[in-house]
Amino acid sequence: MKLATLRLPGRTTAVRIDGDHGTDLGVPDVGAVLGRRDWRRWAAGVAGKRLPLPGAGHSGADGTLDAAGNRPVDNAHEGSGASSYAPVVLRPGKIICVGLNYAPHIREMGRELPEYPTFFAKYPEALIGAHDDIELPPEAPDAVDWEAELAVVVGSRLRRSNEGEAAAAIAGYSVLNDVTMRDWQYRTPQWLQGKTFEGTTPFGPLMVTPDELGASGEADPKLADGVALDLSCDVDGEVMQRANTRDLVFSPARLLAYASQILTLNPGDVIATGTPGGVGHAREPKRYLATGSTVVTRIGGVGELRNRVTTA
Amino acid sequence: MKLATLRLPGRTTAVRIDGDHGTDLGVPDVGAVLGRRDWRRWAAGVAGKRLPLPGAGHSGADGTLDAAGNRPVDNAHEGSGASSYAPVVLRPGKIICVGLNYAPHIREMGRELPEYPTFFAKYPEALIGAHDDIELPPEAPDAVDWEAELAVVVGSRLRRSNEGEAAAAIAGYSVLNDVTMRDWQYRTPQWLQGKTFEGTTPFGPLMVTPDELGASGEADPKLADGVALDLSCDVDGEVMQRANTRDLVFSPARLLAYASQILTLNPGDVIATGTPGGVGHAREPKRYLATGSTVVTRIGGVGELRNRVTTA
Repeated sequence: MKLATLRLPGRTTAVRIDGDHGTDLGVPDVGAVLGRRDWRRWAAGVAGKRLPLPGAGHSGADGTLDAAGNRPVDNAHEGSGASSYAPVVLRPGKIICVGLNYAPHIREMGRELPEYPTFFAKYPEALIGAHDDIELPPEAPDAVDWEAELAVVVGSRLRRSNEGEAAAAIAGYSVLNDVTMRDWQYRTPQWLQGKTFEGTTPFGPLMVTPDELGASGEADPKLADGVALDLSCDVDGEVMQRANTRDLVFSPARLLAYASQILTLNPGDVIATGTPGGVGHAREPKRYLATGSTVVTRIGGVGELRNRVTTA
Repeated sequence: MKLATLRLPGRTTAVRIDGDHGTDLGVPDVGAVLGRRDWRRWAAGVAGKRLPLPGAGHSGADGTLDAAGNRPVDNAHEGSGASSYAPVVLRPGKIICVGLNYAPHIREMGRELPEYPTFFAKYPEALIGAHDDIELPPEAPDAVDWEAELAVVVGSRLRRSNEGEAAAAIAGYSVLNDVTMRDWQYRTPQWLQGKTFEGTTPFGPLMVTPDELGASGEADPKLADGVALDLSCDVDGEVMQRANTRDLVFSPARLLAYASQILTLNPGDVIATGTPGGVGHAREPKRYLATGSTVVTRIGGVGELRNRVTTA
């Protein structure tokens, strides 16, 4: 099953993807779907209104955010049936981001594989939809970098769980680009301020359940070892990052199990599992996002973010 | 004006402190009060039911949390009229914590005063009430440390604001002990995981508006320079931290103005402004919280946290 959150005139709504259209689930976002105890069965069975799916063009052209932190619906959106993708979960209770987590990249830098995952946070205000513009903030326009990541959406409550329980609690996967202001990231010892600029982190377009990715079901122990998905980030057609999620040091289930030792994970919480090598800041010479560029972030079987870079 | 959030049988409620009792404001917490556009006038005028205030004893004796992350009401609570203090804001949209921010302590360590504040996050699941037990997590019982802090509660929306605007947007002040698991804090380069263990950060008991602290009103420019409040942390009667908030490198208004360059601050958001010297980890020999200890965190004119340390 594939779910998404669409912006329609005056509202947002969760949809189930049925071929080339969406079926309106009648709740405001995928987070509200996951808040239902029986969400898998319920979402699979709803017979709602057919909605056209947004095209892959740009949305939210004016870049402003409404009170809920969402970009307003662009009714003139080309070929979209007047809708656009909102962040899959509009306002996750928690977004937990993971630091360096791809083994080949860690080894190529001559470092040891870490014993523990590095966690940092991102506030929900950072999120934008899959095709929204990434607007360079006037306060930090000069060192804006890409970080393609597999995002994991939590589907049920987890506390002090083992990896098998954690695997079974994965609602699905999505794509997130942990766009980072490197100058602000490194102003201080803690990365948070460079990671959470408002409206700069695309997240979506879909949440894809694990069974769609070759796992045979919720309790498939394969999932505890993670999924093997091709991940890439292109800027203006040039491949910047290319990796496979099988090279994650800490698999999604291990990350969830670890985090659940610290605090409760709830439906709709999001874990961004870290980025592989190839970010602009580590290039020689360094490269950053510039006005007019297009960033395409892809995960095989999960989806694609396509974001134009603009200036306020 | 002083506000608090009380736990009553089957509900929580915001109260205005009127002498020795509370006046029920009929909304679930101080966050809901601040969500009203006219909250100052409204909260000052409500004529609600009189409620007894909790005593300063321990609450939440069994240490378990309900689905909302709150400790259950302890009906047998001594001298409390069957209520206890919940976190002032039950579930802040954001908790922004500040790293080293007291000038004397930075200087005594031979460091330069920082150009920028260090921000890191805490998730709302970490919060407990002012008199709740701090339960040593079985995963991290050995290096649990105190960090007395002045907490600032945001009262109106702030985005790209200057210090004067930020000062006017401060709803009030509270006390927070940023209890930290030092071993987990330093497992990785990012502190988050040692800072956000569930149910270990006391926050309250009151939110005290700026005018109660000698500022003459919302727009008093004095507030942009911060408030001068005595702050202390005692463990089992021994003074561990003692400082005055006038020594903050970054005043509350500067912190809010800086954060508002990054993202929108909303009513109910909380900024924990950092801790002075005297934490257990920096002592020789190091000292940490142990079962049976009592931690008292005080800010003159704002309030007092009193938490017993227990084992699960």
